Amino acid sequence: AGPTSGAWHSGRAGGSEAETNVPIPGASGLEPALVSTVCALQCQRFLISKVGEDWVFLILLGLVMALVSWAMDFAIATCLQAQKWMYGGLDTNVLLQYMAWVTYPTVLITFSAGFTQILAPQAVGSGIPEMKTILRGVVLKEYLTLKTFVAKVIGLTCALGSGMPLGKEGPFVHIASMCAALLSRFLSLFGGFYENEARNIEMLAAACAVGVGCCFAAPIGGVLFSIEVTSTFFAVRNYWRGFFAATFSAFIFRVLAVWNKDEETITALFKTRFRLDFPFDLQELPAFAVIGIASGFGGALFVYLNRKIVQFMRRQKAINRFLMKKRLLFPALVTLIISTLTFPPGFGQFMAGQLTQKDTLVTLFDNQTWAKQGINDEFEYLGILEAWLHPRSNVFVTLVVFILMKFWMSALATTIPVPCGAFMPVFVIGAAFGRLVGESMAAWFPDGIHTDSNIYRIVPGGYAVVGAAALSGAVTHTVSTAVIVFELTGQISHILPVMIAVILANAVAQSLQPSLYDSIIRIKKLPYLPELGWGHHEKYSVRVEDIMVRDIRYVTLNCKYRDLQQVLHSTKMKNLPLVESAESMILLGSIERTQVGALLSTQLSPQRRLLMLRQKVLPEDGHQLSDSSIRFQVSAATILGDARTGRPPPLSPYHPIPPQISTETSSGTPARAALRKPLKPALKRVPSSPILEWEEQQLDQLVDFSSAKIDPAPFQLVEHTSLHKTHTIFSLLGLDHAFVTSIGRLVGMVSLKEVSRGQGGWGGTEQHLELFAHGFGVPAQGSPRVAGPPHPGAPHPPRPVPGYPNASCPRAPKAACRRSPSKRGSLCPCP
Amino acid sequence: AGPTSGAWHSGRAGGSEAETNVPIPGASGLEPALVSTVCALQCQRFLISKVGEDWVFLILLGLVMALVSWAMDFAIATCLQAQKWMYGGLDTNVLLQYMAWVTYPTVLITFSAGFTQILAPQAVGSGIPEMKTILRGVVLKEYLTLKTFVAKVIGLTCALGSGMPLGKEGPFVHIASMCAALLSRFLSLFGGFYENEARNIEMLAAACAVGVGCCFAAPIGGVLFSIEVTSTFFAVRNYWRGFFAATFSAFIFRVLAVWNKDEETITALFKTRFRLDFPFDLQELPAFAVIGIASGFGGALFVYLNRKIVQFMRRQKAINRFLMKKRLLFPALVTLIISTLTFPPGFGQFMAGQLTQKDTLVTLFDNQTWAKQGINDEFEYLGILEAWLHPRSNVFVTLVVFILMKFWMSALATTIPVPCGAFMPVFVIGAAFGRLVGESMAAWFPDGIHTDSNIYRIVPGGYAVVGAAALSGAVTHTVSTAVIVFELTGQISHILPVMIAVILANAVAQSLQPSLYDSIIRIKKLPYLPELGWGHHEKYSVRVEDIMVRDIRYVTLNCKYRDLQQVLHSTKMKNLPLVESAESMILLGSIERTQVGALLSTQLSPQRRLLMLRQKVLPEDGHQLSDSSIRFQVSAATILGDARTGRPPPLSPYHPIPPQISTETSSGTPARAALRKPLKPALKRVPSSPILEWEEQQLDQLVDFSSAKIDPAPFQLVEHTSLHKTHTIFSLLGLDHAFVTSIGRLVGMVSLKEVSRGQGGWGGTEQHLELFAHGFGVPAQGSPRVAGPPHPGAPHPPRPVPGYPNASCPRAPKAACRRSPSKRGSLCPCP
Repeated sequence: AGPTSGAWHSGRAGGSEAETNVPIPGASGLEPALVSTVCALQCQRFLISKVGEDWVFLILLGLVMALVSWAMDFAIATCLQAQKWMYGGLDTNVLLQYMAWVTYPTVLITFSAGFTQILAPQAVGSGIPEMKTILRGVVLKEYLTLKTFVAKVIGLTCALGSGMPLGKEGPFVHIASMCAALLSRFLSLFGGFYENEARNIEMLAAACAVGVGCCFAAPIGGVLFSIEVTSTFFAVRNYWRGFFAATFSAFIFRVLAVWNKDEETITALFKTRFRLDFPFDLQELPAFAVIGIASGFGGALFVYLNRKIVQFMRRQKAINRFLMKKRLLFPALVTLIISTLTFPPGFGQFMAGQLTQKDTLVTLFDNQTWAKQGINDEFEYLGILEAWLHPRSNVFVTLVVFILMKFWMSALATTIPVPCGAFMPVFVIGAAFGRLVGESMAAWFPDGIHTDSNIYRIVPGGYAVVGAAALSGAVTHTVSTAVIVFELTGQISHILPVMIAVILANAVAQSLQPSLYDSIIRIKKLPYLPELGWGHHEKYSVRVEDIMVRDIRYVTLNCKYRDLQQVLHSTKMKNLPLVESAESMILLGSIERTQVGALLSTQLSPQRRLLMLRQKVLPEDGHQLSDSSIRFQVSAATILGDARTGRPPPLSPYHPIPPQISTETSSGTPARAALRKPLKPALKRVPSSPILEWEEQQLDQLVDFSSAKIDPAPFQLVEHTSLHKTHTIFSLLGLDHAFVTSIGRLVGMVSLKEVSRGQGGWGGTEQHLELFAHGFGVPAQGSPRVAGPPHPGAPHPPRPVPGYPNASCPRAPKAACRRSPSKRGSLCPCP
Repeated sequence: AGPTSGAWHSGRAGGSEAETNVPIPGASGLEPALVSTVCALQCQRFLISKVGEDWVFLILLGLVMALVSWAMDFAIATCLQAQKWMYGGLDTNVLLQYMAWVTYPTVLITFSAGFTQILAPQAVGSGIPEMKTILRGVVLKEYLTLKTFVAKVIGLTCALGSGMPLGKEGPFVHIASMCAALLSRFLSLFGGFYENEARNIEMLAAACAVGVGCCFAAPIGGVLFSIEVTSTFFAVRNYWRGFFAATFSAFIFRVLAVWNKDEETITALFKTRFRLDFPFDLQELPAFAVIGIASGFGGALFVYLNRKIVQFMRRQKAINRFLMKKRLLFPALVTLIISTLTFPPGFGQFMAGQLTQKDTLVTLFDNQTWAKQGINDEFEYLGILEAWLHPRSNVFVTLVVFILMKFWMSALATTIPVPCGAFMPVFVIGAAFGRLVGESMAAWFPDGIHTDSNIYRIVPGGYAVVGAAALSGAVTHTVSTAVIVFELTGQISHILPVMIAVILANAVAQSLQPSLYDSIIRIKKLPYLPELGWGHHEKYSVRVEDIMVRDIRYVTLNCKYRDLQQVLHSTKMKNLPLVESAESMILLGSIERTQVGALLSTQLSPQRRLLMLRQKVLPEDGHQLSDSSIRFQVSAATILGDARTGRPPPLSPYHPIPPQISTETSSGTPARAALRKPLKPALKRVPSSPILEWEEQQLDQLVDFSSAKIDPAPFQLVEHTSLHKTHTIFSLLGLDHAFVTSIGRLVGMVSLKEVSRGQGGWGGTEQHLELFAHGFGVPAQGSPRVAGPPHPGAPHPPRPVPGYPNASCPRAPKAACRRSPSKRGSLCPCP
């Protein structure tokens, strides 16, 4: 199991949680030279184990991530500088300039796509949907490895260095998580404690906060954003971890900037200088509300557009096949189009094309008003502000063009199969939209709205801040973007407008579309339960009996190996219910599919077959003897008239173990599992060889469950449980299935799929699900979404489709193997 | 059940969750005049049910709370103004001045204490500990009623109007929660939906956020603070509710100030004007760290001091008895002492005694440096700043005296039995401490630390902000005080120092003492599970088998009514395990204590007794007949040789119902429950009357469980479950007990008490627990902390001891009755 398969979820709960003491090599046979080494080792271990392990880990994580973030920022800035330099140096020839402007990002993006593709396709995309799924308790293979880390870091640097409208906050969450996973694996070399998997999940949650925190130097916003984006239920206990690590990381990140003489002291990334005494007028609030509502629609549209592009790319089989062959063509093409359109001497002049994302934000958050009383040439555009000025148009046109173009460009660019996020592009678009509204307001009320003695002009930069928070909040369905903008700008004076706009944007966006991350989760079909929507009160009246699967496969206590085989063939359920008998249907526990398989393979194992063959060589009396002993047992069982006598010792707590079983166990006869009915219908099949005959015999024996791990208390619901409650329980405990019982009798089962279907049927999600499912094959009706056990024999992860990896590959969902989550509430006694 | 006894926790899960349709009166027999009424009603209901119920509720809640907050602030300001006016008007005579200065607060506090005492003693104190417990799933009686609301609002206004060092943020959380409870009860008149109890719990959580939010006009900090203070696991799903309501409330609260012409526009409550370009130097960070660490120790000391004062008051029996008689003497005495010491012409001149809490904060957050280069008379103290200047001492002495005096005064004042919180006093002390450090730094480095061309002087106001956040964070064990100070001051430039100081303060304080609220919870013995401390890794290796209670009472399926009686007498457990038989100990389910009582009382009910008496009048053959039928049954059971045959129909899924049971049920003989052994030892007692004899007979019958509600799947753990996991499960699901099973066999039970004891034994909490317990009688060893069923016959809530109500009264913990939480994971099928 990887470092992320939380003990909290794992069946091996008992063992893995204990602090394991690794024996010191050579500690028993001490040599003088070794003593000092051992001492040093012990000191080291003491330091690591005692001086606050969590602190050490979090500080290391923060440090590493700050360094990574800073180094990447530096590299990205260098890349962008290089492009500017090239573009500036070639200003004599527009064609050469164009070539340079277009080739540079195309090469970078293509390299990024190719590099990621080859090294680790899991690094493609944002990473937040995957982290959400991992924190939900699912093991996604290869998502937290060194290879992916390298691919993501280098791929992201190149992608962002290209100047495309891509973000780094999603990938940073992923990078920080990988960093945490690698760090904990590294630190576990020094002591066993880092092997605790529950702790690793907690650390992963902290890492997500670090990712956002050191990306924006926003510790509080980072923690909140990562909670909102990745968690369903959050343990307040773990809160401090995120804060601690994110603060430390943000601190180091900013200190590096000071040491590098970029800044004089620690300040915000995009510092604003709005006036403090009168940040905004009360009467401006409707304008802020309008920004919020419009951003809500815009955010929903962005998510819709992004998804439609992915779906279009997949549906068009001709395009798809072509692109699949030339895997790097799609990124190159998209980059070509986008960079052509932003070419500053071309169309780019109408949309401030030469500005990098960072410069754009700096200008948008600017303190000055660009359009004064409609006469925009009154104001001198200095430095980078020049970009927004066009001699033949005014700033409103530039802003509108910028918003419209960047909108589809960002939606398109984020489907490129490189490591990239969508937060920053959306943030910039939102800021531009806010600025547009702000400039309009400033043009409308040149002397401000306030009619008192003091004239307080309208500050369009404040509108830009509000717009940025609102649109990014709408796309990600988070409220904490408000906190992020405060930390990014270093000013909190616009708190109420920002909060109002963000809440309105969320209200609108959440009622129209899933969040960008949920949308990707659905496209990728990651095993995740969608949230309950706002105010869908119907869920209170839908009951489990309405949505449960009634026709389920089960294992009975007195079944034969043949029945096990049948069950394994007929269902893909990860956990099979174990019932007393088909008549009573009393649920005794749950047994894992792998355990059933193991039982079956043990019964038909080569060892036992060899034993049988060896026995064949012996004279017939040996066989006769065992046969008679079996016959005796059968008669004993018949006398008792109870099928339960065949039950093995560890599972027979319902009744004292019948003595003849223990006799049989200790008798040492080769027929280990007893009870064979002489007239079995299966014997009608004439065996073609002794081996087959032996197998048939073996299959007809009653199953001996003594060696199987059985979860004695799988999670149960009753028929009347409401959907709302079921959803909450599933989310809280991270279940993927639960059995439905009626006074102990098994009557059905609900899995994640039924719950999300049940939800969807009433909340409008069903259509989406169906829509997504249409493209790439819905899993079979009766099987849970994540069906099979992990495939250790499939070392090569599936190759992704452009846009979203693992999506169209039928094997992909299986690569995600669930930790046995039924163990949560009801823990397996086996260590 | 009150509006807070969440369906999520309640045994009547099935029924209460469904949207109940209240029939419209008169809707069936329509008269022309009624039609319009009905239409209007339906329109109204449509509006309420469709136009986003949550929104309506949250907006109403925000509005009401903003009005309450504003009105209270207004009243408090008027009260304080009146005191100032009196004090100022009498400046000719110091004695009269003193009388006025001392009498005024004493009268107010005494009135507040008396009023609260008489109307609703539950209103005393902060309210956050109680809300924490209520949100944890416990029903505290009378804590969310109108009476308590009125008592808290008026009591708090008077208490704060007195100028004592008391806070309003804790009570505001309580007031907002009461407001939400009352509002939902009021709105449920219009539609059934507000009767959903799960929803009400969600709304209560939002209300807590509103309380803090509109108290400080800090929506984000309010939400986070309320989450940290009241929740263990937080549903991100409910996040937006808090944000929405708190933002709206803070908005209205500030808009009221604008409308009242107090402010020109919406700004922060304690606006600061620190420079933005260079807020602090990197080299100042160690000073901030020192503030954090010192605040951590200070916070722990505050909690300790506060607790010691309460304990001292309780231990001193002489004082106690005296104070108990004269209930209002203690508040009056404390107020007298404190106001005497702060009398401005007296000792108050050394501690800025004439400043109100608000003025103190304004001056402490001031932008200027008070002590320049050691010569403090260089700087002109204008307006209220004058208070800090003393001709015969310097500002450092004033600050030190202020901090020391306010420290114990606040710790003492918060034990007064009036509605009051400790947040604001602590906040002020922290700010003063920060100011002290800041002034020292400014004196030490007159031209700032930075050695570049620009001189950036040190801003002591920034230190005050850091200190305020750190100390309040240390006392409450929260990180979100950082966000609260940003919102309070309107500046976020000091984010890194604040975060660093708050985290360090938390680290120190959490390792030394519980939070103030947890301390009160322990003193009051509210049924709450303490949090897992930081980095107590031992919890991973402690297992349930180490802490569980092995000797538990249970009900067997084939027991007699007499056994039930015995079990009820011998244990106080709220939920009794139902096992198959004493030999097998297979756990079949859990039955509530009340259900057992009901079974018993039904069996011995007057109806049945009457039936018996009527039967006595009949000829003897009737009795003979029933007797023979019983005898037949006994023989049948003997033939089967299985005790389980006596099982009643609904609970016998393990085996098909034996036919003779149904025969017996339908035979209509008076002996409803069958099977009576002729030679029972109980018959040795010679019955003194026919009634007694009949009762003895009845008690000897086998229990008929068919009418009892049985939870078929109570929460189970296995012996190897670690304490850490148990704690998490208990917190997640809000359990108060769980049964420990070993392959289906009941082997023990853990309740909240064992878990917190197990924790304490390794984490240092045990000592505290014992300490607290010493004063007022530990509950019996074997019984869970909240033992009995609610006492409907005890209408008068117990009278509180000064300091903490409900603490020394042995009946008090029983008033808190737990909702049956075992129903959470495993829901009762009974509607």
